[in-house]
Amino acid sequence: MNNTPHAPVTVIGLGLMGQALAGAFLKAGHPTTVWNRTPAKAAPLVAAGARSAPTLGDALAASPLTIVCLTDYDAVYELLGANGVEPDPTTPIDTTLINLTSGSAGQAREAAEWAERRGARYLDGAIMAIPSGIGTAEAVILHSGPEQVFADHASTLGALGTITHLGADPGLASLYDVAGLAMMWSVLNAWLQGTALLAKAGVDAVTYAPFARQIAAGVADWLPGYAEQIDKGSFPAEVAALETDARAMEHLIEESEAMGVNAELPRLIKAMADRAIAAGHGGEQYPVLIEEFGKP
Amino acid sequence: MNNTPHAPVTVIGLGLMGQALAGAFLKAGHPTTVWNRTPAKAAPLVAAGARSAPTLGDALAASPLTIVCLTDYDAVYELLGANGVEPDPTTPIDTTLINLTSGSAGQAREAAEWAERRGARYLDGAIMAIPSGIGTAEAVILHSGPEQVFADHASTLGALGTITHLGADPGLASLYDVAGLAMMWSVLNAWLQGTALLAKAGVDAVTYAPFARQIAAGVADWLPGYAEQIDKGSFPAEVAALETDARAMEHLIEESEAMGVNAELPRLIKAMADRAIAAGHGGEQYPVLIEEFGKP
Ligand SMILES: NC(=O)c1ccc[n+]([C@@H]2O[C@H](COP(=O)([O-])OP(=O)(O)OC[C@H]3O[C@@H](n4cnc5c(N)ncnc54)[C@H](OP(=O)(O)O)[C@@H]3O)[C@@H](O)[C@H]2O)c1
Ligand SMILES: NC(=O)c1ccc[n+]([C@@H]2O[C@H](COP(=O)([O-])OP(=O)(O)OC[C@H]3O[C@@H](n4cnc5c(N)ncnc54)[C@H](OP(=O)(O)O)[C@@H]3O)[C@@H](O)[C@H]2O)c1
Repeated sequence: MNNTPHAPVTVIGLGLMGQALAGAFLKAGHPTTVWNRTPAKAAPLVAAGARSAPTLGDALAASPLTIVCLTDYDAVYELLGANGVEPDPTTPIDTTLINLTSGSAGQAREAAEWAERRGARYLDGAIMAIPSGIGTAEAVILHSGPEQVFADHASTLGALGTITHLGADPGLASLYDVAGLAMMWSVLNAWLQGTALLAKAGVDAVTYAPFARQIAAGVADWLPGYAEQIDKGSFPAEVAALETDARAMEHLIEESEAMGVNAELPRLIKAMADRAIAAGHGGEQYPVLIEEFGKP
Repeated sequence: MNNTPHAPVTVIGLGLMGQALAGAFLKAGHPTTVWNRTPAKAAPLVAAGARSAPTLGDALAASPLTIVCLTDYDAVYELLGANGVEPDPTTPIDTTLINLTSGSAGQAREAAEWAERRGARYLDGAIMAIPSGIGTAEAVILHSGPEQVFADHASTLGALGTITHLGADPGLASLYDVAGLAMMWSVLNAWLQGTALLAKAGVDAVTYAPFARQIAAGVADWLPGYAEQIDKGSFPAEVAALETDARAMEHLIEESEAMGVNAELPRLIKAMADRAIAAGHGGEQYPVLIEEFGKP
């Protein structure tokens, strides 16, 4: 029943992101109830057809699905938790809570336990998008927690963008989120390193970028195959041995220094490889570095 | 005339890579002359139809195009340079030399000047492939030096893989090469960081890899647009301000530490961003970091 195209939904927290979320539900035709600590922020959504709940308790009771999107987990507990004055913290919460507030895997797991104690079904989520992207396929929204809870609400959640369910551990959405961001910053930093090097030889950023794009996309395609080596724990040097890579890493450092650009990223790349070589893995292939990355 | 489908070509240096290069020319039907310091390595190529030059001078005189692929630039000078006993270093070299030996931009520029003094036309190149990939489209071979010299031999060089000409500065092939490698290692490292994090939550590498692949390929697509910001020197926060990124970077560090995985890469990512923020760029967009990457 919750899976009907126009199931009702509540959005709690109408900051930049909460407003975008509520707007996307409205646009997709879902009866949408909204609530915000500062009530004035509800006005544009009410003008677009939302119902502004008079109290938080009313907002939580209004829909089978409630999206929470506040600054951080402290704000979530302050509002809904043991110290929350409204609703009565001893009253069960009878809705599915999907918490799209950014936080750590540990915070997500704690919040799932807290929600269970309060009687709510719970999913944790992470939004890999900016507010203006919400409601388009480019907005990737990750969910983790009980699979059935996700399945029950997938058709409503689909109004927000490209939605995925990662697994039963509520911490997964936040882990995939930070891992994805690490990839984003790493691709950008490597591109900046190359752009800075080439700039010293008079090459425009626009001239260099298509090359960097092609390499990044090409290497991305290797990952599923390399992942098999990791799961097997076997790293035969089919393409190149790590010690061959290390020699080329030395070239990258020397070239960065010679061209007068920052060499910290090249030096970190080499330091990680050198450690794996020192541990006896010089004749194996790059993914053997997982052992170094897996250590504190 | 050099552009006829079956122009003759000479390959000097028959290590793992030189053998693959000569093999690809033979396979494409080019009359191929080979020479190696240790002559025995020519035998399999001779069996496949190559001509083994009796002397280095003969090898250099045999074809309008000569590929050189030795261990390093020192080996190139030792063989062909001022101290080379054969051919006579005062005799002009009348062929186009394409030096596919790995080296730095500075070494490539010096070699171009040396070749000019010896009367040879010269291109510097870099091979982004392994020997078994040579002769397929996956082998990317970068060239730099006079455009006309490249044009004259492009049809012969095409036998080796996907060939490109980057510009007149002979150092460009080597710079693009190390920049591309920096991208390769960075994508792999970010993927390993995420794989290590997810492993602590019980997620297989194979399960995580498609997500990492999708993010890397997605971010790669932003690069041409971001490059325009760099060339304009203007970094409006259209997607997100650097200080918003920095808060998420802190999450990545905390999560890595909490999960017991290496946090050096996350810390370097944040250190670079913090420096740009300290320099007053917190309200601008990520590519403003080019200023940090461009400093020694
Ligand atoms: N914006 C983005 O691009 C983006 C992208 C991905 C993820 N996110 C995540 O989405 C979440 C919300 O971001 P945002 O951009 O919407 O932030 P925001 O514009 O700063 O809004 C914060 C919201 O939290 C509410 N709030 C804060 N403390 C509260 C408390 N103690 N009790 C009740 N309500 C409280 C605020 O209510 P008031 O209006 O009363 O202050 C407001 O509705 C964050 O976790 C963020 O990391 C944002
Ligand atoms: N293999 C790869 O995957 C790969 C990939 C990209 C780029 N490259 C680059 O390609 C180049 C060659 O690599 P490779 O794998 O073919 O190396 P290799 O198997 O070690 O072969 C080295 C070659 O250089 C010759 N040589 C070395 N010093 C010499 C000297 N002083 N005088 C004359 N000849 C000398 C060797 O001759 P002898 O046989 O007489 O020792 C041999 O032909 C290197 O710059 C490498 O970085 C290789």
